[in-house]
Amino acid sequence: MRTLLDSIGFMGRRDFVDDPSAPAANSVVPSVVAIVRRHNGSILLIHKTDNDLWALPGGGHEIGESIAETVVREVREETGYDVEVETITGTYTNPHHVMAYDDGEVRQQFSIAFRAKLIGGKARTSKESSEVRWVRPEDLERLNMHPSMRLRIQHALENRDAPFIG
Amino acid sequence: MRTLLDSIGFMGRRDFVDDPSAPAANSVVPSVVAIVRRHNGSILLIHKTDNDLWALPGGGHEIGESIAETVVREVREETGYDVEVETITGTYTNPHHVMAYDDGEVRQQFSIAFRAKLIGGKARTSKESSEVRWVRPEDLERLNMHPSMRLRIQHALENRDAPFIG
Repeated sequence: MRTLLDSIGFMGRRDFVDDPSAPAANSVVPSVVAIVRRHNGSILLIHKTDNDLWALPGGGHEIGESIAETVVREVREETGYDVEVETITGTYTNPHHVMAYDDGEVRQQFSIAFRAKLIGGKARTSKESSEVRWVRPEDLERLNMHPSMRLRIQHALENRDAPFIG
Repeated sequence: MRTLLDSIGFMGRRDFVDDPSAPAANSVVPSVVAIVRRHNGSILLIHKTDNDLWALPGGGHEIGESIAETVVREVREETGYDVEVETITGTYTNPHHVMAYDDGEVRQQFSIAFRAKLIGGKARTSKESSEVRWVRPEDLERLNMHPSMRLRIQHALENRDAPFIG
């Protein structure tokens, strides 16, 4: 459920993939997503307030932190859980995927996906996440999710020898 | 040997690592380095014009390209060789390592190291590289090289199961 606090933090976002009408990118911010699983295999997901889609927790790198610290901070902020980074499952840097925000920023996709281990905390929502849920792989299809996010989950579940590079 | 063209493109750079007197970072640009080896195991290195050190070829990501395209472009620009990206050998995002440029930019380290395969081209220098050389691992010690660059080479030569995350 959306709260007043959520609404204050709300900022609209639209994704464009291979779309000739997409605005030109004017920004690149290295970002992360985290694949966190419970013992039963279910995956930690959030219902995002910025685009109303389900997604892996994650967000943009900030000056002053390492990329592993970005993963830990974003997962804690968006889900309430504490994690440790384990490995990289892929990079997603398609220049033909851009995200247009209400403030005029048009960010080119630049995301690194990490597998991370749950070490503590408990679920809570945030201004960026109206729901936090553990989802079984077989239930992913029912959720409204961007294809690029589905792909990152798929690559992580494949347990590849080496990270996907895209 | 430095040429007139090299001099025009010259921009000084100083690295600070864990140095309390370092200027505060004001920029993050995702960057890459490439580890390219010949059949005999020697590694492709350049003598950099910006800091007069030996290094793996590489550089900053530009809007409009994927990260693999950054690797291919930078290796071609700095060495004359054509490569294909194979895998990620590590990330290097220590917030206490910053690079101060003459124009006031203070860039926080944010580098992804890739193993790449030689597929063509031939050696030539550039405004960023006054020498291009294949160096045997046992000869690395003799070259003047930043410790953070040595570490990336070391990790790549270790053939780890998973990328180093730092």
